[in-house]
Amino acid sequence: MAQQKATNITWHEATVTVDDREKLLNQKGCVIWFTGLSGSGKSTLANAVEQVLHHQRHHTYVLDGDNVRHGLNKNLGFSPEDREENIRRIGEVAKLFSDAGTIVMTAFISPYRTDRDQARALIAEDRFVEVFVDCPLDVCEERDTKGLYKKARAGEIKEFTGISAPYEPPLEPELTVNTAALSIEECAHAVVETLVKIGLVPAGN
Amino acid sequence: MAQQKATNITWHEATVTVDDREKLLNQKGCVIWFTGLSGSGKSTLANAVEQVLHHQRHHTYVLDGDNVRHGLNKNLGFSPEDREENIRRIGEVAKLFSDAGTIVMTAFISPYRTDRDQARALIAEDRFVEVFVDCPLDVCEERDTKGLYKKARAGEIKEFTGISAPYEPPLEPELTVNTAALSIEECAHAVVETLVKIGLVPAGN
Repeated sequence: MAQQKATNITWHEATVTVDDREKLLNQKGCVIWFTGLSGSGKSTLANAVEQVLHHQRHHTYVLDGDNVRHGLNKNLGFSPEDREENIRRIGEVAKLFSDAGTIVMTAFISPYRTDRDQARALIAEDRFVEVFVDCPLDVCEERDTKGLYKKARAGEIKEFTGISAPYEPPLEPELTVNTAALSIEECAHAVVETLVKIGLVPAGN
Repeated sequence: MAQQKATNITWHEATVTVDDREKLLNQKGCVIWFTGLSGSGKSTLANAVEQVLHHQRHHTYVLDGDNVRHGLNKNLGFSPEDREENIRRIGEVAKLFSDAGTIVMTAFISPYRTDRDQARALIAEDRFVEVFVDCPLDVCEERDTKGLYKKARAGEIKEFTGISAPYEPPLEPELTVNTAALSIEECAHAVVETLVKIGLVPAGN
């Protein structure tokens, strides 16, 4: 038994670290946190950034409504407490992914500054990249990709961000992109340039 | 605007898939679910497996009490409902990691068959590898790495698995390893061999 115990201790001391995983992946684990109105283009932009980074052989993952709301957060509704818990869990999962060395992107409205700042506080300072997906409400409403604005205007959805609930734009985001003025490709490249500038991915690969 | 919308659609259709990520990483995303008594060696073994796989340039991550209980699941206690929710969330997060193409390992007692089977049900059939870390209770208690058995015997911890709460061993795990009979290195290699056999990582690299 003594020998067994000693073996255990050795292994414990020699765990694979986040540095090891980052060297393997040739990148820094980080969180790109997209925030903006419904229809502003958060998921579209996250997917576009993922394509660019994947093409450069980076390991990426996108957390969005599709894979989070129906899974991890399926027991949460839209009450204020549930909305807060929703963003809290997303922040914690994003932290785990960044600790794994992955470039993880989150694409949620996340309308409250406090909630976003709590997510930021979980992550090392230079590993959290807040991207404000800025798009005028009327453009988002004209797009109305999911038909939600129509329902919100008809009163079928209560407390809809931008219509009947507030959206608090970031005060000091790492990047603001205007999806009404620029193409998704242009916005995606602006995100990737920001990552290079911060030193999260190598330049020019 | 019409052009912008069309661009959105194009990008949406061309998202990076789990297949793409798996090709990049040269592995299949999967969940290795370690289950066993406290002190059986789950975390130690998961870390040992991670070392072997990392050395083979695989992308891995270990979910355990250290990074989950104090983060994502810090608002959960030890009531039956909270224990169930604890394992449910771990299963959902493991699913996200496997969808990212990562080989994710979970190291939690997870004493109930129902909870483990619910985690299994979330994951594709050939991507969930349940490893029973089998170790006699008296050996776990002799190790008592965290001093928890002593406290449980003294009645300071209620409902402690193996002492005052049940442990339900898996009926058909993909692998059983006996950490009292084999070294951690031997157990780790048995796990990796199982992955190769299932086709989750290439042989002999």
